[in-house]
Amino acid sequence: MTRLDLTADVVGLTRALVDLPSESGREADIADAVEGALRALPHLAVERVGDCVVARTGLGRSGRVLIAGHLDTVPAAGNLPSRLADGRVHGLGACDMKGGLAVALRLAATVPEPARDVTFVFYECEEVDAERNGLGRIAAARPGLLQDADLAILMEPSDAGVEAGCQGFLTADIVVRGARAHTARAWRGTNAAHKAGRVLQRLDAHVPERVVIDGLEYREGLSAVAVRAGVAGNVVPDECVVTVNGRFAPSRSPAEAEAYVRGLFPEYEVRITEVVGGALPHLDRVGALVRALGAEPRPKLGWTDVARFAALGVPALNYGPGDPSLAHTAGEYVPVDHLRRCESRLSAWLRGSRPAPATGATV
Amino acid sequence: MTRLDLTADVVGLTRALVDLPSESGREADIADAVEGALRALPHLAVERVGDCVVARTGLGRSGRVLIAGHLDTVPAAGNLPSRLADGRVHGLGACDMKGGLAVALRLAATVPEPARDVTFVFYECEEVDAERNGLGRIAAARPGLLQDADLAILMEPSDAGVEAGCQGFLTADIVVRGARAHTARAWRGTNAAHKAGRVLQRLDAHVPERVVIDGLEYREGLSAVAVRAGVAGNVVPDECVVTVNGRFAPSRSPAEAEAYVRGLFPEYEVRITEVVGGALPHLDRVGALVRALGAEPRPKLGWTDVARFAALGVPALNYGPGDPSLAHTAGEYVPVDHLRRCESRLSAWLRGSRPAPATGATV
Repeated sequence: MTRLDLTADVVGLTRALVDLPSESGREADIADAVEGALRALPHLAVERVGDCVVARTGLGRSGRVLIAGHLDTVPAAGNLPSRLADGRVHGLGACDMKGGLAVALRLAATVPEPARDVTFVFYECEEVDAERNGLGRIAAARPGLLQDADLAILMEPSDAGVEAGCQGFLTADIVVRGARAHTARAWRGTNAAHKAGRVLQRLDAHVPERVVIDGLEYREGLSAVAVRAGVAGNVVPDECVVTVNGRFAPSRSPAEAEAYVRGLFPEYEVRITEVVGGALPHLDRVGALVRALGAEPRPKLGWTDVARFAALGVPALNYGPGDPSLAHTAGEYVPVDHLRRCESRLSAWLRGSRPAPATGATV
Repeated sequence: MTRLDLTADVVGLTRALVDLPSESGREADIADAVEGALRALPHLAVERVGDCVVARTGLGRSGRVLIAGHLDTVPAAGNLPSRLADGRVHGLGACDMKGGLAVALRLAATVPEPARDVTFVFYECEEVDAERNGLGRIAAARPGLLQDADLAILMEPSDAGVEAGCQGFLTADIVVRGARAHTARAWRGTNAAHKAGRVLQRLDAHVPERVVIDGLEYREGLSAVAVRAGVAGNVVPDECVVTVNGRFAPSRSPAEAEAYVRGLFPEYEVRITEVVGGALPHLDRVGALVRALGAEPRPKLGWTDVARFAALGVPALNYGPGDPSLAHTAGEYVPVDHLRRCESRLSAWLRGSRPAPATGATV
């Protein structure tokens, strides 16, 4: 078993984690290593749930913060082993999110007497189908491990800034029907692809809303992500399916989002294939933490696991090292200064120190 | 080797041909049987070209007619062996086009002294890719076997009526481009599927022309037969391809058809993937035959191998037993009265008899 040295510098620890492969579904080795390192820390009670590891302080403090990160990465793309160059750790998962894991593990090891109790959650299968998601499985099977937190920090890459809440999303098929015919006698049929032009033009003309919550602007969207029609090269197609992906502000419920899309296409069959609510920013409840982190909060437009905390009644925010647009790219990296800043700010806040002066939202 | 009895009734011969499987690419057995039966007829000179059989009279008549039919069928669909019921021969290829083959073989056997010379062509691979088409291969390798005919009769199912000429066709991809983005930030990209709405609406609004030639109306068409867009469920697609299939009157050249489609979509990349000219009806040259067959000619809207004869300078028409809309269906059949009418009318015309009185266009 790989031994992780949590007393090492956060940069070295990030590299060690990158060099411990953990593609989704193959997290056993990294979970073993994390579990072993945490069990060596006497102030933490450690539980293994599948290939997830939960470690909790039990100091009887008046508040509890949950710090979470996923152990898995997308598949390798010729980007192993890790490499330190130009002030950046390069390599598979460096950005998404082994840098964040390293910060969390350093906090576990170096803040044995935090001012509030802490629950660390390291989980499997974030990068794959939702039903495999380790955080979701703990929430379903062992909600008590998560629900006693007052707030949660998800260490997804966010440019070492705070991204508050997250938008919900919806996927739907708009089904346009016609009638088949031989193309040599096309007038005997009704071309469903031709009729789908109206659906696509309506999407093109659609102006999504911008919803302001706690001063943050959540910019919605509705995009065709697939169009499928075609029977054979000489057949007028009798069906055209336009798949749309919608992003909606966390103030809308999934039911409202669904009704909105159905209302936009009342004359077609609309099949909702997936709809998941977002997470409100709850700046009223996470504001002190945001100020301590010295970052101007931004709205999170993509969906993240903070929505799972929201569903449990735990306000959560995204805060982690790395540029989120580099996630899943072969050239992903995490800047060393992000690692150090995230570690020092969170460490100070956990210890109950005064926050460092704000230096702006992001680097 | 199966022995075909050409002295048998046309119905029994149709059934024997249906019961001799000949899916495209597997025509050796039926070609052997046809070749053997024709070689037994002393008035015919027979040549085998691949799995095609060409048989010619050499009576020194002033004119020559070519009678052609393909030997192959589409794959079986639980519709073998043949079955005679309700005045119809049922079974694989009965309609497309073993009924027509039976008529042609009966003519070869029963009219040893036609008023004009005759070339019979039985060919392979009509139902598959154009480059495998047996008639096309003879036209390329041995054009002399075909070119000395004054007119050609293609025995494709045409409801025992005359379908004159044929339309050309064209297949093109209309490529709409955009720029990828994450759907959570869709405004950073350009959705190619949304933009393709204009292409589809233009097709929907397009009114095809109707071109009258020799009194026959060729009704053109332009149909989207496929639409493809999609990168991933959370990605704004950067390309949407609309595949259109056009049918154009035989008075238009392939170059004119291509220019027409390009002109309709000047702002997009248009990739022409296939374009084939049609065949003019040439009623001035085939009119006497049409009158002899006692059928009001109709325009052929689909493309057939008559266009290959047109390309060789031989005017041609479609005339054969069977409803063309049953071709390629599991339930295909050919009416016995079609078989008898086609045989008797062609036989009379070949012998130089007076035509039977016209009884209307079709049954």
